[in-house]
Amino acid sequence: MNASRRIPVPSPQENRLVPSDWILADCRQPSLEHAERARARQDQLTKPQGSLGRIETLAVELAALQRVDRPALARVPVIVFAGDHGVVAQGVSAFPSEVTVQMLHNFANGGAAISVLARELGLPLRLVDAGTRASQPIAGVHADKPCLGTRDFSIEAAMDEDELAHALAAGRRAVEAAGDADLFVFGEMGIGNTTAASALACALADLPLEELVGAGTGLQGDRIAHKQQVIARALALHRPHIDAHAQPAREALRRVGGLEIAAMAGAMIAAAQRGVPVLVDGFIVSAAALAAVALQPQARPWLLFSHQSAERGHARVLAALEARPLLQLDLRLGEGSGAALAVPLLRLACALHNGMATFAEAAVSGRDDAP
Amino acid sequence: MNASRRIPVPSPQENRLVPSDWILADCRQPSLEHAERARARQDQLTKPQGSLGRIETLAVELAALQRVDRPALARVPVIVFAGDHGVVAQGVSAFPSEVTVQMLHNFANGGAAISVLARELGLPLRLVDAGTRASQPIAGVHADKPCLGTRDFSIEAAMDEDELAHALAAGRRAVEAAGDADLFVFGEMGIGNTTAASALACALADLPLEELVGAGTGLQGDRIAHKQQVIARALALHRPHIDAHAQPAREALRRVGGLEIAAMAGAMIAAAQRGVPVLVDGFIVSAAALAAVALQPQARPWLLFSHQSAERGHARVLAALEARPLLQLDLRLGEGSGAALAVPLLRLACALHNGMATFAEAAVSGRDDAP
Repeated sequence: MNASRRIPVPSPQENRLVPSDWILADCRQPSLEHAERARARQDQLTKPQGSLGRIETLAVELAALQRVDRPALARVPVIVFAGDHGVVAQGVSAFPSEVTVQMLHNFANGGAAISVLARELGLPLRLVDAGTRASQPIAGVHADKPCLGTRDFSIEAAMDEDELAHALAAGRRAVEAAGDADLFVFGEMGIGNTTAASALACALADLPLEELVGAGTGLQGDRIAHKQQVIARALALHRPHIDAHAQPAREALRRVGGLEIAAMAGAMIAAAQRGVPVLVDGFIVSAAALAAVALQPQARPWLLFSHQSAERGHARVLAALEARPLLQLDLRLGEGSGAALAVPLLRLACALHNGMATFAEAAVSGRDDAP
Repeated sequence: MNASRRIPVPSPQENRLVPSDWILADCRQPSLEHAERARARQDQLTKPQGSLGRIETLAVELAALQRVDRPALARVPVIVFAGDHGVVAQGVSAFPSEVTVQMLHNFANGGAAISVLARELGLPLRLVDAGTRASQPIAGVHADKPCLGTRDFSIEAAMDEDELAHALAAGRRAVEAAGDADLFVFGEMGIGNTTAASALACALADLPLEELVGAGTGLQGDRIAHKQQVIARALALHRPHIDAHAQPAREALRRVGGLEIAAMAGAMIAAAQRGVPVLVDGFIVSAAALAAVALQPQARPWLLFSHQSAERGHARVLAALEARPLLQLDLRLGEGSGAALAVPLLRLACALHNGMATFAEAAVSGRDDAP
């Protein structure tokens, strides 16, 4: 093990005590009965049937997931998981690794996009260092990490088994620590993590690499080609091992994933097991969603998709998940910012569902061609 | 004049006293200087440049329109203009004309979609009867109308000159009555008004009729074809007069428009003259925007476009306006509901612009390939 990756404080041992197959425990099931009742209510509200489009289907979906007649989104914790990536040594990012920890300080100090959005929207913001290179505690950041960043996956596996198990369980612990929630937003910060997300999506969904590699935080032409070569080399190295493994999704996550990506995958599965929907952010979080669904397919109905980002591979990853995002605003920031931007739409969908009058209540005539 | 259209109370005379060319008075100009400063600030905020996509351009646009360094959207009045349409006699709508006034009651009583959205978002909601068939005052609704609905434009002009002048000025009066505003949302209610909007868009922008006629509140196949035939007949009747007129846009609005549509066009021009941006809703409001820009081209920069609706012609009307809408959620309700749903995105764009830390403030490193 690379000495610089060794963590200076003892790692929590809990993840070794929890059987690794907590991942395979059943997720809750959406309530078809509540979906039907919500659909019926939508058709009675004073508007032409279906005229609120996706706002209607959102309300119906939330009613089914929350198992209630009147869905609500009062408690929406945002959990940002941060991690560093050994592969940054290969020159795959426009920003240096130091920025991961600098941005964690910025999150905690209220200056980052997700800090502003969480404040404006009244979303409690929790910051988890799931594996940055920081060797000292960061004020306002909860550290739950097995090591100081991943290994360089262009030459070796990103994590060992224990590190992966720790990262997955860190996601579950963060979900448990958040208390009661109506919806979760997970975000990420990690210089180099579009590289890991692209490699992971290729490995999990067998997508063409050239369609999955983009500018990340802002690479220019030549450096995007270089990033693609680094990933291609890594996949050539790891793919035979992944394909031969008894649990290929888990092995892909271990070999080419990231600590914050694994933590988000664990958090999504834990949320689905608790029966709390998750509003998925951009490219990195969607790659984590792909991993979560590969590890535990029952998690899929709990994932709502907030937006399609400007990062090249996102559309392909969303298609692989059969996801239809709400927004398309050329975002490519991460941090959970795109999901946070979509929270008002979901809240308004609930308010409309719960607060509009029915035709009968308002004494409004129905269609003149009604049967 | 059709006796049933005569209004039972004397119409305000003010519009006769105001020269009809108030429409041609200059609009304010967006501030290029503020746009440049806002762009420069965006590039200093702690995120990769451009990574907030359209959220960044929105903030820059609002800074330029409001002529400020820190744009804000605290005061966003929603004004819903209602009107009835003589052409409903031709069977062009799935709902009877009575629904226009019934829905005005519902708006005032808080049960309609726009009532719920305005309440949730803290947007003052003002209801203007710009020409419904209501012969009695409606509690909570301000009446400012020249007549009880338009004439059936499939057989004669929808309005006479005075009625059109009144409707345009009613829009200006509503804007003046709203007091200080950071942004306006205009909405509409009028059974039959997709028919008027389709006819108007065809007449103004020379768009193919078959691409502009859709289901409105929910017509099925055969009745859409009938609606298209009614509009085609009307355009054959009116187009020679429109084309021969000295002010063809105004003549198109008079012959195939609607009272609420003319009021919205007047309101948009008045807002642009006052220097207040307008967030445009769906198909009907976009047709009014087309009319506003045809009457007063300087109004165009003041129009922001909230969404592309599911109503068939909307994409074409947006293209004619060179507009790029923010949302695409299959909405087709009207009332200003789509614009209201987009207000949180604009507010969050302002909050991010104003509240994020710069790289220097947060001591975050820049790009490692920066010059």
